[in-house]
Order: sequence, then C-alpha cells, then structure tokens
Amino acid sequence: YGMAETEDQVGAVTGLAWTEVGGELLTIEAVMMPGKGRMTVTGNLRDVMKESISAAASYVRSRAIDYGIKPPLYDKRDVHVHVPEGATPKDGPSAGIAMATAIVSVMSGIPIRKDIAMTGEVTLRGRVLPIGGLKEKLLAALRGGLKIVLIPEENAKDLAEIPDNVKNGLEIIPVARMDEVLKHALIRQPVPIVWDEEAEPVASPKTGDDDAAGALAH
Amino acid sequence: YGMAETEDQVGAVTGLAWTEVGGELLTIEAVMMPGKGRMTVTGNLRDVMKESISAAASYVRSRAIDYGIKPPLYDKRDVHVHVPEGATPKDGPSAGIAMATAIVSVMSGIPIRKDIAMTGEVTLRGRVLPIGGLKEKLLAALRGGLKIVLIPEENAKDLAEIPDNVKNGLEIIPVARMDEVLKHALIRQPVPIVWDEEAEPVASPKTGDDDAAGALAH
Amino acid sequence: YGMAETEDQVGAVTGLAWTEVGGELLTIEAVMMPGKGRMTVTGNLRDVMKESISAAASYVRSRAIDYGIKPPLYDKRDVHVHVPEGATPKDGPSAGIAMATAIVSVMSGIPIRKDIAMTGEVTLRGRVLPIGGLKEKLLAALRGGLKIVLIPEENAKDLAEIPDNVKNGLEIIPVARMDEVLKHALIRQPVPIVWDEEAEPVASPKTGDDDAAGALAH
Amino acid sequence: YGMAETEDQVGAVTGLAWTEVGGELLTIEAVMMPGKGRMTVTGNLRDVMKESISAAASYVRSRAIDYGIKPPLYDKRDVHVHVPEGATPKDGPSAGIAMATAIVSVMSGIPIRKDIAMTGEVTLRGRVLPIGGLKEKLLAALRGGLKIVLIPEENAKDLAEIPDNVKNGLEIIPVARMDEVLKHALIRQPVPIVWDEEAEPVASPKTGDDDAAGALAH
Amino acid sequence: YGMAETEDQVGAVTGLAWTEVGGELLTIEAVMMPGKGRMTVTGNLRDVMKESISAAASYVRSRAIDYGIKPPLYDKRDVHVHVPEGATPKDGPSAGIAMATAIVSVMSGIPIRKDIAMTGEVTLRGRVLPIGGLKEKLLAALRGGLKIVLIPEENAKDLAEIPDNVKNGLEIIPVARMDEVLKHALIRQPVPIVWDEEAEPVASPKTGDDDAAGALAH
Amino acid sequence: YGMAETEDQVGAVTGLAWTEVGGELLTIEAVMMPGKGRMTVTGNLRDVMKESISAAASYVRSRAIDYGIKPPLYDKRDVHVHVPEGATPKDGPSAGIAMATAIVSVMSGIPIRKDIAMTGEVTLRGRVLPIGGLKEKLLAALRGGLKIVLIPEENAKDLAEIPDNVKNGLEIIPVARMDEVLKHALIRQPVPIVWDEEAEPVASPKTGDDDAAGALAH
Ligand SMILES: [Ca+2]
Ligand SMILES: [Ca+2]
Ligand SMILES: [Ca+2]
Ligand SMILES: [Ca+2]
Ligand SMILES: [Ca+2]
Ligand SMILES: [Ca+2]
Ligand SMILES: [Ca+2]
Ligand SMILES: [Ca+2]
Ligand SMILES: [Ca+2]
Ligand SMILES: [Ca+2]
Ligand SMILES: [Ca+2]
Ligand SMILES: [Ca+2]
Repeated sequence: YGMAETEDQVGAVTGLAWTEVGGELLTIEAVMMPGKGRMTVTGNLRDVMKESISAAASYVRSRAIDYGIKPPLYDKRDVHVHVPEGATPKDGPSAGIAMATAIVSVMSGIPIRKDIAMTGEVTLRGRVLPIGGLKEKLLAALRGGLKIVLIPEENAKDLAEIPDNVKNGLEIIPVARMDEVLKHALIRQPVPIVWDEEAEPVASPKTGDDDAAGALAH
Repeated sequence: YGMAETEDQVGAVTGLAWTEVGGELLTIEAVMMPGKGRMTVTGNLRDVMKESISAAASYVRSRAIDYGIKPPLYDKRDVHVHVPEGATPKDGPSAGIAMATAIVSVMSGIPIRKDIAMTGEVTLRGRVLPIGGLKEKLLAALRGGLKIVLIPEENAKDLAEIPDNVKNGLEIIPVARMDEVLKHALIRQPVPIVWDEEAEPVASPKTGDDDAAGALAH
Repeated sequence: YGMAETEDQVGAVTGLAWTEVGGELLTIEAVMMPGKGRMTVTGNLRDVMKESISAAASYVRSRAIDYGIKPPLYDKRDVHVHVPEGATPKDGPSAGIAMATAIVSVMSGIPIRKDIAMTGEVTLRGRVLPIGGLKEKLLAALRGGLKIVLIPEENAKDLAEIPDNVKNGLEIIPVARMDEVLKHALIRQPVPIVWDEEAEPVASPKTGDDDAAGALAH
Repeated sequence: YGMAETEDQVGAVTGLAWTEVGGELLTIEAVMMPGKGRMTVTGNLRDVMKESISAAASYVRSRAIDYGIKPPLYDKRDVHVHVPEGATPKDGPSAGIAMATAIVSVMSGIPIRKDIAMTGEVTLRGRVLPIGGLKEKLLAALRGGLKIVLIPEENAKDLAEIPDNVKNGLEIIPVARMDEVLKHALIRQPVPIVWDEEAEPVASPKTGDDDAAGALAH
Repeated sequence: YGMAETEDQVGAVTGLAWTEVGGELLTIEAVMMPGKGRMTVTGNLRDVMKESISAAASYVRSRAIDYGIKPPLYDKRDVHVHVPEGATPKDGPSAGIAMATAIVSVMSGIPIRKDIAMTGEVTLRGRVLPIGGLKEKLLAALRGGLKIVLIPEENAKDLAEIPDNVKNGLEIIPVARMDEVLKHALIRQPVPIVWDEEAEPVASPKTGDDDAAGALAH
Repeated sequence: YGMAETEDQVGAVTGLAWTEVGGELLTIEAVMMPGKGRMTVTGNLRDVMKESISAAASYVRSRAIDYGIKPPLYDKRDVHVHVPEGATPKDGPSAGIAMATAIVSVMSGIPIRKDIAMTGEVTLRGRVLPIGGLKEKLLAALRGGLKIVLIPEENAKDLAEIPDNVKNGLEIIPVARMDEVLKHALIRQPVPIVWDEEAEPVASPKTGDDDAAGALAH
C-alpha cells in the first residue's frame, strides 16, 4: 500500500490512487535542475495523468509571482516529475492537486508536510474538482499512517458513507482551491514577489489572491 | 451538469457539449504565462476539438490589433487552453467560438460575463457555423443557471422545436460572426490599436471591422 | 451543400468536393499572421489533402516574385489554411488549385472573386491535373449559386456527359496551369517584382511566366 | 499512362513505375526555394520511396562541388520533391536515379531532356542497382512517347525477353553509375567547382569523377 | 548468462534481469562525448526501462555537485546509455540503480568495481525500491562470477527463501538509497564541489547528503 | 547474393546478413557532407539495426581523437549511412562492427579493404558480441569472392561445424574488440591526435587504447 514519508520533503508529496484492488498511496516526486525550462514526466503515466501534470504546471507558472517564484527561473531550470513504481501504469486526473503542490514546493524550495495526503483534479485556475473512489483512498491513507487528507469540497457530501473509524483516524479537510491546498500542505507559506519584466524583483508582503491570474497576465 | 461561474472571469467561459446522455456545460479555461509563443491544449481532447482551438487561436492572432493585442505579446507569452474533467474525452468543433472568446479574453485581459454560455464552430475568418444538439445544449444551460446563450444564426430555424419553458428561461441570441460573440460575451469591448512593425504601438479609436483580416495582413 | 460567398474575399475560395452523397462546396480559408514562416493546416484533413496544401504552398513559394510576394515575408509571417466543418473528414488532391489560389491571395492581399468555384490537382510546377466526380461537383456549384467553375483541361472531354441545364447555368472554364486559374480567380493580377537577395526589391512590369520556376531558382 | 513532357524542364523528370495493372510513367518534380536547407517530399509516398529520395539527396550533396553546386546553397534554399497524382500511393526504391537527376537539375539549374525516362535504385555512392518489371516499364515508356530509356546495367540481361517492337521503338541504355545517368539526361553537363570552406568558390574545368566521394569528404 | 567484467570500468556496470527462462546478467554501458547535452538510449529497450534511465539521469543531474560534476558539463557533453544484445527486448524499472551508477561513473570519470552486480528501481530522490525475481537474479550473479550483489532493503526479507549456497557464494548487501549504492560500487567516492552559477567551481570536502536535492535547487 | 567490391572504398564495407533463404552480402555505405552534425540512416532498416548504427556512431564519437577525427568535425558535417536494396527490410544488431568501420572510414578518410567482410554486434565500448547464422554468412562470403571474414571471438567455437572447403577458401579471423576490426579492415591505421578543447589539435603518435573511453571523457 505504501507508507507516509518519514520527514518533510521538498518536491515529494503523497497522492491517493484508486485501483481495482482498492486504494493506494502514490508518491509524487519533483526535482529541479539547472536547464532550459523543459519539463519531463515519467512513471508509466497514461495521457490523462500526463495532461494533469501539464495543467498543474501551467497553473503554477501563471501564478508564479504569487508563489515567490521569479519568472526567469523558468528559463534556467528543468523540472522532472516522476511517479515511482514504474511497473504499474497510472492514469486519471485525480492527482492534479498533488502534482501542483509538488511543483510549487520544488520551485519555491518549501517542504511539504510528511503526514498529509491529497486527492483532487486541478484546473488551470486552481479550482479543485471532485474525484471517485473516496472510501478506498481514505482507507489507504489510514493504513499508510497519514494524519491529514485533503479532499475536493464537492466530495464532502460523500463522507456520510465513510466508516466512523476512518473519519476518526484521519483529519479530512475539504478544499475548493489550490490556495487552500497549499495552506495545509506546505510547512510555510510562499511570499509573493513583485516582478517587473524590466527591473529586478523585490519581495513583497502582497497576499496571494486566487482570483487573479497573476500580475504578469494583466 | 455543471453550473454557471460565480463571477466574471478572465479566460474562463462556458461552452455547451452534446453527449449520449444529454447536454453538458463545458468550462473552458485559458491562462497566459511569460513564455515564447507556445500554445498548449489539454483536457482529454480529440483531434477535431484540438483543431478548433488552433483555428480559434489563428483567428484571434490574425485580428490581434483589432482586439488591442500587441503582436510582440505573441513572442513573450505562452497560452494554455484546458477543458477540465480530464476523465471525459471531448471532441467536435462546436466549442470553437467559446475557444476564441477565451483566447481574446486572456490576451486582452477583459473578463467574460459569468451568466453567458455559447455554442458554435468558428472559422478562420470569424464566421459562426451551425452545430448539432441545440435542444439538449439549451436544456443544460437552463439547468446550470445561465442567463444568455449564443447560438449560430444558421441554427435559429431550429428554435421552433425548442420547448417554450426553455425559450422563456434563457435569452437566446443567434450570432453570425465572432465580433457579435465578443460584443455579448466580454464585459467591455477591446480597443483596437494601430501597430507599425518598426514603431511603438498607439491606442486608436478605430472600430473593429470583421471583414478585414487585420491591418498586418494587408 | 453550402453557398457562394457574399463578397470578394482575401484568402477565401470555394472548392468542390465529391462525397458518397453527391457534390459539396468546400470553403477554403487562409489567413496570414505575424510569425516565423510556419504553416498550419486544419479542418479534419487526411494525409493526401494535407500534402496537396504542401505542394500548393511550395508552388507559390517557388514563384513568389512572379506573384509580387517579397521573399522575406516567408520569415516574418505564419500562414494557416483551414477547411471549415471540422466534423467532416476531408481527403484527396483535387482541392490543390483552390489551395494555391487561397495562398496567393492571402500573401499578395488580392481578393478572390466570390462567384467562382474550382477543382483540380496542382503540381509543384503549377500544372492542373484531372479530377473525379465532375458531374456531382458541377451540380453542387449550380445549387450553391456560383457563376464560374474552373475545371482541369483534361476533364473537358467529360463535359459531354453533363446535363445541358448545368452547362447553361454555369460558365465552365477548362484550365491547364495555375497562371490561368489565377487570371480568372483573382480580382486583379499580381505584379511581379524583381528581387535581389542583397538589395531592396523593386516592383517591375515583368509578366508572370509559368514556364520558369521563378528567378530565384535560376 | 501519362505522356512525355513537351519541353526540357528544370527539375522535372520521367520515372517508370510498375503496378498491378502494368507500367506507368511517373512524373517527378523538384523545386528549389529560398529557405534554410529543409527538404520536403510529398505525393502519397510510402517509406521506401521516401528513403530513396533521402539517399538520392545525400548522394548529390556529398558530390555537390562536382556538380557545380556551391555548398552554402544548402543553407539558403529549401527543396521540395513531389510525385503528382496524389490519390495513388507510391512505393519502392526504383525511382532513385530519377530522384537524383531531378535534384541535380533543380540545384544546378540545368534542364532535363524531355524525351528520356529512367528506372533504377541509386546508392549513396551513385551506383545504379537493378529493378523489377522491366518489360512493363518499357511498354509504358513506348506508349508515352519517350525516346530514350535508362535502365540498370544489371538488368541488361533481361532485354532478351523484351519484344522487338519495344526494343526498336526506344533507345535503351544500360547505366551503372549516376554520372552516366546525368550524361544522358541533362541537356548540358555541370561544371565542377573548387570550393575552399574559408574562401570564395572558383569554377574549374575539373572532370566529375564518380569514384571519389567529393573533395569535401577527403 | 553473461560473465563479470574483467576489469574495473568507467561507465560499465552489471545489472540483473529476470526473464522467463531465469536470471541474466545485463551489462549497462554509458559513454560521454563532446556534445550539447543530449541523452541517447539504445538496446531494444521498452518504455518502462527507458523511463528508468530518464529518472536515473535526472537524479544524477539534480545532485550533480554532490558528485563532483560541474553543471556546465551538461551543456558540453552528450551521454549515450546502451544495453547490449540488441536482439533481446528489455523492460522494467529494476535496472534503475545500475543506470544511475553508470551515469555517475561516466560523468565523474570514476570506475565501477568489476565484481559487483545490482538490482533495484531508483526514484528521483535516490530511493531504492523493491524488485521481483530476487532468487533468479542472485543465481545469475553467482554463475557469472560476481562477488557482491546490491539488493533493495525492502527485498531483504526475501533472503530467507534463498538457498544457502547462493548466500554463501555472494556478499549480498541491502541498500535503501543511491548514496549507499555508490559507496559500494565506485572504486573511489566522488568529491562534492561548491558551485556558484556566476563564479568558478571550487572542489570542497562537503560530504554528500542524500536528503537535500542539491545546492542548486535551494 | 551480391559480390565483393572491385576497389578499396572510403565508407563502403561488406557486412553479412542471415535470412530465411541463406546468407547474403550486405553492402553498407556511409557518406559525409558539409552539415551540422546530423546523422541519417536509410535502407528499410528496422529498429534494432537503426539502434546498432546509433551505438556504432557513439562508439566512434567517444573515441574520435584516437581515430584522428577532430571533434569540431561533428559540428560541421552530416553523415548518412545507407544499406542498399531498399525493397528488402533489414534488422538485427549483427552489422554493428561493419557500421562502426564504415563510420570510422568516412570520417577519417581511410579506405576499407575491398576483400574483407565482417559480422558482429558492437557495444558502446567497442566490444564484439556473438552473432547467429555463422555458417550461412561464411558461405555467402565465399560465393561473393571475399578473402577475409572477421567474426566475433565468441563464435570461434562454432567454426568446428563449418565445412572444410569454406574454411580453406576464406581467411576467418575472430575478433574481440573494434580496434582489432579496424586493424584488419582499414588499408592504413588512423593516427591518434591530441585535442585540447581550447587550443588547436596536434597529431601525436599516441597508440589507440581500447580500454579508455577517449581522452575527452576523462
Ligand atoms: Ca504501491
Ligand atoms: Ca493572486
Ligand atoms: Ca460535467
Ligand atoms: Ca477589422
Ligand atoms: Ca457542407
Ligand atoms: Ca514566370
Ligand atoms: Ca497516371
Ligand atoms: Ca568526383
Ligand atoms: Ca545474455
Ligand atoms: Ca546532498
Ligand atoms: Ca542481395
Ligand atoms: Ca584508447
């Protein structure tokens, strides 16, 4: 089934998969390397999961300055996202919020809490969409020793059918937007920067605001 | 079925899909990012829908200055168009005018009305071509709480077969060209600019004129 | 079946398709955009039709100066050719002369007569090769309100089998070379230029001459 | 069946194809355009014929200076090779010497005799390899009004089985190397140049010599 | 079955494969060449094994300075990883740690011990994941004359089922992280360097530390 | 069956193929052209043979200076490897040493002996691996008039089953490494050069040494 991480990690997060034989923990790893802005995705991923990484990456990129990521980093670094256990094919959009969290973590350098798991499709604007297999996924999280599980707000209504022992053993938090996901998952919050394409960046206390597509897009 | 957006958004628009089980709202999202002129499309899209995005994007690009978009933006930004709910395959040309609207919105920074839905194929010259499944699509729009629906002028004759309660519950507007689409969908109209490839751009009150392929093409 | 255009257009021309259920008008659209010399083709096109656009484009490019097109335009513009009605797959080489006409029009800025339709394969040297389905195509042109139809010279012998009402309702013109096609289709003829790779171009009254592959190729 | 060309052409040559229903003339067209050294091949060609064009092009390129072609031309021109009649799939290596002849012609600007046809695989070193369907191909050449046919030397032994009327109606010339092919096919022979990568090229009377892979390769 | 190498080699390492007919030695070769940062992988490899090389390469790249590899090397060298015996298809993630070892060796110039074999999936963060076919793989190593075999720590529990003669004939070392793999496999340990993107690199005695994703990523 | 070459050639070598109907001579041709470092491979080759050319090319590139090849040549030349008789599909790794020999020959300008044939897989480090069909291949070499055949050392044990007339008619030489192959196949040996990435190359009498991956890789 897999187990929780043993320490807070930069770029590593626990997703939740739903398979024919039940729920599974899905470790998602991201590393950043000196490079030219390329993104590599591996781990025996089918097209829908590959596209969920692409959407997650564009969400993060369009909001880069809100997350304290200086845009030039996109020209000087490559990012590789990998889902281990290469022998197992993986598909579906439900790891989207985990993908986005891993990418924000690796690009901002902020570690992810080791005791958190999450499931939810992410949209380009950071909305969290509902997923299937909630019960099996929560069981896997419990077995794996996780403490907190983020689920899509639209799945909150399905909690009625989840056994009490699962609900007692986990802190289950419904979320509607990526900003909520990051608030729970990162050990500290990114500090937005102000970025002027012609000038040098300056750190600013500007609060991240999910409704704007990022200052660069205005 | 999906629901209308809760606020006017830059780059997000509601399309209408026709499936075996009836009509559906189709959220279309576009974001713009610092980049090099690349376009990414995701959302489990089949070839015909991918091509409809390509045609929509070229329509907008060929008319950029009419929409107040400075041509150099095409060298300095990437655009990503995504259709959420990655688990569902999507195909067909009928989201074309929604794709073009999302692209104009994200590149001009002008929000799209949250209470509008639309369906129609778009051509490279901004013509709106007829679509199928009108009845099912209008029903989905009504259920989803939309107020206005743009349909192709060539489908106006099909309204005779639409139940009265649907026609009373929605403002249904036939459109023949993208300029009409944008007039209804954007919360304010883009201001055309004059662009001289060697000089700096200057905003101008020139009225957008659908029949010319854009000053740069002359 | 489709209808004739309502006005003379730059880059839009009416081709003729032959399907299982009869003849059809095929609108072909080309737009030119600031760019880097890329060509995009869309419209649910199969390989043979895609290749016919490639051959048409190379024909025009190899004869650019005869058509008044300055070669540097090829480094600074992108061209997109689209055949609307994305839901219908399209194939075959017989739209070749229409493709070449649309490309000359959009690159030279000269409109195409709205009342003309055409069918014929084009070769790299501008030869017009014979096509199938002549009768069905002419019927579609008549129904669609077209006035003039260009057909390959090698199909002239097939006119014997065409009903008189069709032959009376249309001006049918056999053509053997692209220069004849353009003479009929464009509202004015392009003015050849002299081009010196190291110097500035100068407009010249040199008559287009189909037998030479273009001064640059000498 | 096709017919011979009506005049000597730059870049156009008549090949011979062997199909289930007999022999056929195969027109091969090449054009050169201002560009960046790209090669495009079209005409509903299968992989083996595409590769025969690639081998022909490399043969010519490796011998460029022997054929009077200045190497920088490869950076400043694009070449497109097309085999008309796009509705017919075409395959096999036997048009190789015709491909090489068309490429030498278009790059050197020397026309090809209009009354010559040819068949033979070409190797990277300009060897002419044997082909199948000799009889059907010769019949097609006779019917099409051709005067001279080049065939591989290794097929000369098969002439015994060719009807006398065919052998009387055509001048059939066995060839073993591309230099012989060009001697017969071009209306004048290319003049080799001396090329020094750092200096300017100077035309020289050096005789083309098939056994060397070109001065640049030494 | 294959045999152990006869001397310590740069870039050559012995992996262990599991096939229908038993275990096999798998030689993995890496060479580095002047180039532009490209990676080539060959040897009749299926997708999962190709992705395992990609993950191994990114692991090494993200930790380059820990392994004494100057980042600019990634712009000036190409690396080719090949698995000989091209007639045999190869798949699966279990050669991951061998791939990473070969890449570190060829990029750092440090030879690999000739008497060591290894099996284990590698993650982007250098974790060693369990594999299948342990018994067959160990038998192959014994037969091939290897002395040391590295296996994943999570497979240590499976050693109970391995015959004593195998366990007596081999030194079997469970490993959990790539740093342990390299400690056993390389004939000397790489010396981490300090790298400042704007300044010159300076060798430093800094100990490699597996938990950080490399100084450049901070 | 094919015949031996009639003179020593740069870039042309005789391989040996094993087909359902017996052994065959396989001519392998390589040419070098002014270019940008691209490699083209043609001749109806399946993936395993294509990969064997890739491995052969990387072997030569990693040892370039040992073979007197100045590294900048890789940026200024293209190489095309072709296996004639395009109508016949070809596969398998056993032409590897012939591929490497052809590439060394064309890049160093040293001819290959016309009376030699060879068979053997090559690894990235220049090892010669065993092949199948030895008897049929030797028979083809004898029939084709070859004098010397290089075979993998690991196939020497199979010579016991080869008829005496074959062994008497050919000089059969087992080889274990590419350096031995080249010693027999090239009409003179390449002279290693010393290459300093920042300075000019100087020819040196340094003996090629198969065990090092080339001075540049140290
Ligand atoms: Ca698992
Ligand atoms: Ca914000
Ligand atoms: Ca839905
Ligand atoms: Ca306008
Ligand atoms: Ca129609
Ligand atoms: Ca002309
Ligand atoms: Ca024909
Ligand atoms: Ca010569
Ligand atoms: Ca083996
Ligand atoms: Ca470390
Ligand atoms: Ca043969
Ligand atoms: Ca050496």
